[in-house]
Amino acid sequence: MKERGLLIVLSGPSGVGKGTVRKEIFSQNDANFQYSISMTTRKPRAGEVDGVDYFFKSREEFEELIKQEKLLEWAEYVGNYYGTPVDYVEQTLSEGRDVFLEIEVQGALQVRKAFPEGLFIFLAPPSLNELKNRIVTRGTESQELIDNRMKVAKEEIIMMDAYDYVVENDRVDLACERINAIVVAEHCRRERIAPRYKKLLEVE
Amino acid sequence: MKERGLLIVLSGPSGVGKGTVRKEIFSQNDANFQYSISMTTRKPRAGEVDGVDYFFKSREEFEELIKQEKLLEWAEYVGNYYGTPVDYVEQTLSEGRDVFLEIEVQGALQVRKAFPEGLFIFLAPPSLNELKNRIVTRGTESQELIDNRMKVAKEEIIMMDAYDYVVENDRVDLACERINAIVVAEHCRRERIAPRYKKLLEVE
Repeated sequence: MKERGLLIVLSGPSGVGKGTVRKEIFSQNDANFQYSISMTTRKPRAGEVDGVDYFFKSREEFEELIKQEKLLEWAEYVGNYYGTPVDYVEQTLSEGRDVFLEIEVQGALQVRKAFPEGLFIFLAPPSLNELKNRIVTRGTESQELIDNRMKVAKEEIIMMDAYDYVVENDRVDLACERINAIVVAEHCRRERIAPRYKKLLEVE
Repeated sequence: MKERGLLIVLSGPSGVGKGTVRKEIFSQNDANFQYSISMTTRKPRAGEVDGVDYFFKSREEFEELIKQEKLLEWAEYVGNYYGTPVDYVEQTLSEGRDVFLEIEVQGALQVRKAFPEGLFIFLAPPSLNELKNRIVTRGTESQELIDNRMKVAKEEIIMMDAYDYVVENDRVDLACERINAIVVAEHCRRERIAPRYKKLLEVE
């Protein structure tokens, strides 16, 4: 029987750069985990590709999948649905491969309940002011939307306590290094590998 | 007030290669923790230098330090004392720097009691047979001593359960990479850094 893979969940406040960090990790050749693409009803931003960045769905399609319980987690966030299709995750873990999710905080909390043994990483902004700047300079949102995002972000920082690790996104390359280190370290955790060693060394 | 440093304890069965791994880690420029040199009453092996590999002491000197409670941990192991001078460890941690100990299993269990918040890494042999080969090919021990070491090693493998991480020493470079990753990951653990973030972001 194969050892089950690790479920790695990268989450954090809106605008903190989760997508950028995730893309950088998967651009490296030595990233040996599978990326699970999220599903969303929000409109694609410039450059985003359906089936690569997200599966873009209509509200009607998304609500049908919720009914069929085909989503590991889902949330309505700033007026849009986001979710993770369950089948791909289960299949990959059972094959002994690690799965990498990049999702919003509400969704991560749902996954924590379904997979308490998962590896939950909170990507944190260097400061709340910097978070504000990043959203403003994205240049496509109204002041009302920005204020709403800030309120949500403060709440999410309180939610940090539900995570195993906090990685500051001060520099994308450093954030990726830390995330890769966390995955390597988790594979060395005694609870995961001691039983294998004892069997190998014929110690009961 | 500075944040207290991390106490990193590398331990494992006799002959597994703790010293080799430790030397390789400290030969790398980016190893940013302090090595705490152990004290022992065993005779130096060829190439070992007093004050570099160990502080070599007589039994009388060592027993005097035990009386004065100047040892963080100590053990008698295969007829010799091994221990860690306490002053250097405390001083370095309080300056906010990480301290790296490479010690025998009995000593690690004592440190675990004094520093439960430390980071305990068990260096494991790829197999017990390979452990035996390594001790034999060192070529300086009697069969009786080897048998004794094997018995001790089996006991130590059961002790694996007292550790946070298990790193297989299949290749020295890979073992070092895993240990470095574990230290990076531990610095990202939520319990260590969430309070700092909340203060920075003015969230209570």
